[in-house]
Amino acid sequence: MENIKSETYRKGLALLNQLHGGQAGEQLVNNLQDICPDFVDMTIEWAMQGIMARPGLDLLTREYLLIASCTTLGHTVPQLKAHIDAALKLGATKQQIVEVILQMTFYAGGAAVSNALAYAKEVFQHHNI
Amino acid sequence: MENIKSETYRKGLALLNQLHGGQAGEQLVNNLQDICPDFVDMTIEWAMQGIMARPGLDLLTREYLLIASCTTLGHTVPQLKAHIDAALKLGATKQQIVEVILQMTFYAGGAAVSNALAYAKEVFQHHNI
Amino acid sequence: MENIKSETYRKGLALLNQLHGGQAGEQLVNNLQDICPDFVDMTIEWAMQGIMARPGLDLLTREYLLIASCTTLGHTVPQLKAHIDAALKLGATKQQIVEVILQMTFYAGGAAVSNALAYAKEVFQHHNI
Amino acid sequence: MENIKSETYRKGLALLNQLHGGQAGEQLVNNLQDICPDFVDMTIEWAMQGIMARPGLDLLTREYLLIASCTTLGHTVPQLKAHIDAALKLGATKQQIVEVILQMTFYAGGAAVSNALAYAKEVFQHHNI
Amino acid sequence: MENIKSETYRKGLALLNQLHGGQAGEQLVNNLQDICPDFVDMTIEWAMQGIMARPGLDLLTREYLLIASCTTLGHTVPQLKAHIDAALKLGATKQQIVEVILQMTFYAGGAAVSNALAYAKEVFQHHNI
Amino acid sequence: MENIKSETYRKGLALLNQLHGGQAGEQLVNNLQDICPDFVDMTIEWAMQGIMARPGLDLLTREYLLIASCTTLGHTVPQLKAHIDAALKLGATKQQIVEVILQMTFYAGGAAVSNALAYAKEVFQHHNI
Repeated sequence: MENIKSETYRKGLALLNQLHGGQAGEQLVNNLQDICPDFVDMTIEWAMQGIMARPGLDLLTREYLLIASCTTLGHTVPQLKAHIDAALKLGATKQQIVEVILQMTFYAGGAAVSNALAYAKEVFQHHNI
Repeated sequence: MENIKSETYRKGLALLNQLHGGQAGEQLVNNLQDICPDFVDMTIEWAMQGIMARPGLDLLTREYLLIASCTTLGHTVPQLKAHIDAALKLGATKQQIVEVILQMTFYAGGAAVSNALAYAKEVFQHHNI
Repeated sequence: MENIKSETYRKGLALLNQLHGGQAGEQLVNNLQDICPDFVDMTIEWAMQGIMARPGLDLLTREYLLIASCTTLGHTVPQLKAHIDAALKLGATKQQIVEVILQMTFYAGGAAVSNALAYAKEVFQHHNI
Repeated sequence: MENIKSETYRKGLALLNQLHGGQAGEQLVNNLQDICPDFVDMTIEWAMQGIMARPGLDLLTREYLLIASCTTLGHTVPQLKAHIDAALKLGATKQQIVEVILQMTFYAGGAAVSNALAYAKEVFQHHNI
Repeated sequence: MENIKSETYRKGLALLNQLHGGQAGEQLVNNLQDICPDFVDMTIEWAMQGIMARPGLDLLTREYLLIASCTTLGHTVPQLKAHIDAALKLGATKQQIVEVILQMTFYAGGAAVSNALAYAKEVFQHHNI
Repeated sequence: MENIKSETYRKGLALLNQLHGGQAGEQLVNNLQDICPDFVDMTIEWAMQGIMARPGLDLLTREYLLIASCTTLGHTVPQLKAHIDAALKLGATKQQIVEVILQMTFYAGGAAVSNALAYAKEVFQHHNI
């Protein structure tokens, strides 16, 4: 929000690049930079440095939780793919991500799980796994 | 479904008792035993032995994922409390459970998180923590 | 909306009384009569005479569909109970209503089904069945 | 529903054309005219003349509320775009619409907001703003 | 899950083929066979033989209930289409399916209904009706 | 997060007190102060000063949007009541709040609207209006 970005912003941006560097995450951010730069700042300062970077849970567990939430919401498809991608970058195996989604069957329902697995397959194919 | 319960059923029931033994889980099951015993069987055979008992993710991570899903759904309050209770039984700290719920802020929204934290507080008070 | 209620309104009100006469439905309507009488009119003219009274599906099938929708939404508890009550009035058995809710397991999820069954149990107990 | 359309219908259609004339809204209506003409009538008589045309709130505030609801629902994308388009027709600035969506961050969640902003961007580009 | 598939599996697969044989359902299943074969088994054994094949409600009523649930969820589009297709296979008319979706207007909301009708139109066109 | 609270925090807290001073809001905050003080800080710094205090839309319009979102979500009842209370504090009439909720009928559905009106009635009674 200020011209000289805060320490919080710089740390949040570094985390964003670590997790979503390359394609999915950057695209999400760039896509909104011109229409609402403040939302991009919020994503970096609040969602990244304010929440994601907190101690108490490791980054991969946090990514699993976001995959669970996106599977449950059903309609946040770009975010679901971005967090599957981030989990792979953090060392998750294909099978672990499938288990995270499958675990939602009795809560989000099998239809939501079926669609989330299909989106996961697209991300896996992009990683050639 | 058969009179002599299957191996799947017996293992699922043991897992149910491990995770939800005592109050919350048993109450959920007993409450539905007379109105729809087949649903109780499904919960034990499918949700417990079919999904929860799978290899690939440890039980506590699975409970975290269910807390995330219940926080996102918003209206599954008895299940949210039962899974917070189960996570505590599996060794999670109060602070770890708070982190799991807090991680949902940018996805389920802050209102859902605020309410889930209030329900968590009730479970913590019941555990005197 | 006019002082002399329309034919649509009178037919809709008769249908409302047929389906929800007695307790649940009347309470819903009376509760909102002073705060927003136009919404009560909409419920009677639109939801009742405009949709519920249409040919093409019988009334009981329509009540089943509303039970399915309320189970899926999760948070519309007074409406869920009112439609279970209406289905019973139209001749549904306890077991048929349980089947309608159970059918939602793979779509609304088992947690939503579990809670809906518990609400159904309350309605059944009120009917002494 | 009758061959000679009612006053309510004619006023509702005029409002529909005022708000959604041109592309988005007409397309929604035409798309459903053959499969379910009664639903188109309901949209015109109920949603337009019955609700949207009511006194007590101006039309632009009502469009803002619908943008808020569609952002929260997440999956009603054609409607979200149609109401952003209508708000622009009623004189809203690009920045005001962005503020309406951004206001949802703590309730609908940041993922829903991020996607809604991306859809808004498409509508803005179609208006060359 | 075992190499020699169970009686439950074989009956469930026969029901799957009866309801979704041809295109929509098979595609859903094949799409997930390599990424998570256990989920396909769950769909066949639990969703099909465990729930869909139960006595107490006929198959067409069950398909109507799933159309209602998918319309309410909003984001489960492939499943909505698959169940409209299955209802047609079971003898439902185009108008009956439209009525099922229309019945959701006061619960899932008109926007969800509008989109579901548009998806139904695609399935009808594929059936040349 | 720091001992000496930031300017953002102090301004956010003043806005929180302006909007929710007295009962509803303070209770929400106090309830979570011991279990997760960082979430209370987030609410004050992000939701209040970061979003609510932004220029571009007046405070009452922002409260209307939150009432719309809570009505659509359905399960965020304490927040719905808190924002109806805040809208009254900002000068909204009872009828304007009813219109905001009623506007949701075709999007959130009539059942969600019916329940939100009943909750609004409770807040109005507390204000003796």
